[in-house]
Amino acid sequence: MEAFDVTILGCSSALPAFGRYPSSQLVQIASRYFLVDCGEGTQMQLRRYSLKFQRIEHIFISHLHGDHYLGLPGLLSSMHLLGRTDPLHIYGDKGLEEILNINNKYSHTVLKYEVHFHALDFKEPKLLFEDDKVKISSIILKHSIDCCGFVFEEKNRPRKLIKEKIEALKIPIASLESIKWGADYTYPEGTVTILNKDITTDPLPPRKYAYCSDTIYNQDLISHIQNSDMIYHEATFMEDMRERADQTMHSTAMDAARIAKDANVKRLLLGHFSARYKDLNLLLEEAKTIFPATYLAQEGEKYYL
Amino acid sequence: MEAFDVTILGCSSALPAFGRYPSSQLVQIASRYFLVDCGEGTQMQLRRYSLKFQRIEHIFISHLHGDHYLGLPGLLSSMHLLGRTDPLHIYGDKGLEEILNINNKYSHTVLKYEVHFHALDFKEPKLLFEDDKVKISSIILKHSIDCCGFVFEEKNRPRKLIKEKIEALKIPIASLESIKWGADYTYPEGTVTILNKDITTDPLPPRKYAYCSDTIYNQDLISHIQNSDMIYHEATFMEDMRERADQTMHSTAMDAARIAKDANVKRLLLGHFSARYKDLNLLLEEAKTIFPATYLAQEGEKYYL
Repeated sequence: MEAFDVTILGCSSALPAFGRYPSSQLVQIASRYFLVDCGEGTQMQLRRYSLKFQRIEHIFISHLHGDHYLGLPGLLSSMHLLGRTDPLHIYGDKGLEEILNINNKYSHTVLKYEVHFHALDFKEPKLLFEDDKVKISSIILKHSIDCCGFVFEEKNRPRKLIKEKIEALKIPIASLESIKWGADYTYPEGTVTILNKDITTDPLPPRKYAYCSDTIYNQDLISHIQNSDMIYHEATFMEDMRERADQTMHSTAMDAARIAKDANVKRLLLGHFSARYKDLNLLLEEAKTIFPATYLAQEGEKYYL
Repeated sequence: MEAFDVTILGCSSALPAFGRYPSSQLVQIASRYFLVDCGEGTQMQLRRYSLKFQRIEHIFISHLHGDHYLGLPGLLSSMHLLGRTDPLHIYGDKGLEEILNINNKYSHTVLKYEVHFHALDFKEPKLLFEDDKVKISSIILKHSIDCCGFVFEEKNRPRKLIKEKIEALKIPIASLESIKWGADYTYPEGTVTILNKDITTDPLPPRKYAYCSDTIYNQDLISHIQNSDMIYHEATFMEDMRERADQTMHSTAMDAARIAKDANVKRLLLGHFSARYKDLNLLLEEAKTIFPATYLAQEGEKYYL
């Protein structure tokens, strides 16, 4: 089975505390590496966990609060100093390009690799990237400034060959690839056709992961993240801080759990924790009262889908 | 004796490696706290070492290479989120103000405290700050972009009262402060004067610390940092990388040692280490062949003057 996993690099909200770093995570699908948000210190975290950051080809920045992007100029510079030549794609608010350019201007830096900047649309969800294995779309979050989440989906997976039947029917190897993708098989003389359904079984369902940070409780998300294998949803506060959550346009652990439940996801990963909580188990317990398959994001941990 | 110490927060050059953070250090003189450079992750380092960053009133940024300032927007934001109201003074290239403003613009941040920005002059050394205890000046470094170092000097210290003589001569307490600063004492009837030199001894000499990063070997520094109690001098490379040092306008450990020797300083602290050196003792040994009182900057360590 192809890899599909998420490594948490930072799960703190704006004020880093208790050794927790601001938002960032690395999503691997097959052999593709996607960085999602890039708070201050992300490059140190990538190194700490021995993750090779030159393999990252796409970086998605949800919004322009510092705790989600201030690590980006340093990461781009380190990629440059380490001799990167592969192009890099960055998806973010159009203002991000201006921020990156001004840093390069004053440091007299001309990067040795190309940066392709893709401005996000904060009005409606868009397909951002697609290849033969994966599809990545934006979702619209509701926060104090323009903010997007991201949905990572595997493309349809190949059907599974029934090995014994393939051998017994002497179907040549050259035809197997097309059979995996649904084709019937006709022998060269053209008279006998074997139906695909008789020599394959259904593929595993494609996996889906959604990143939802920062946002208030937002029912509009549900149709987009429905049936995900895992979602990361911010849980900056607990219900006892409801007023503060509303005021700063953040979610509580309970909000995250309600979204996970209504969207019928398999697992919920809580993150973006306020510096007021040293013991995060309180947030976990609050969410579990509504959605038992809840986990706390932990830095350095890899979560497999 | 009043405090005068330097805590290293980061001693890596541009590419952070082996857990080392980019340039930053906290200088304490009496009860004043000065931050010198603010590479990515400085706010995490301040927290890691339990240093109260709200006490910092002045921040000096040597130049606009990212490893010397990318931690600043995050630190300013955290000061804001923690409710700071005290004004903050920032000294740096005028471009830094533009960089900070653009970050605040896109995150819709209006800081709750005043930031007074002081543009550095990169043509000639200037007095940057002075009060009753301390004097801070810039020095001109030679690097690939405009770059300043900083010299921290105690003001003249008070003369030491000879307690037994003061008592025997019945000099009133109200007169002692002026005597500490060199005044003679005349009795109220106006006929008898006690000379200052007979009731005091010389003060301890004022202490001096110089921060020299980033720069090539530069003899012009010597007159400004002469007789310092300690200097921090960059030593990005060793002599075997002389060509690379010249090309990137950095010093070797040997360069730093020559400056320390020629300036007749008491102690040399090496820093700004290239990611190519895991074992820094090689740099230390190179410098010690010329200047024995050399030490390696170590993150979290406090160096007392």
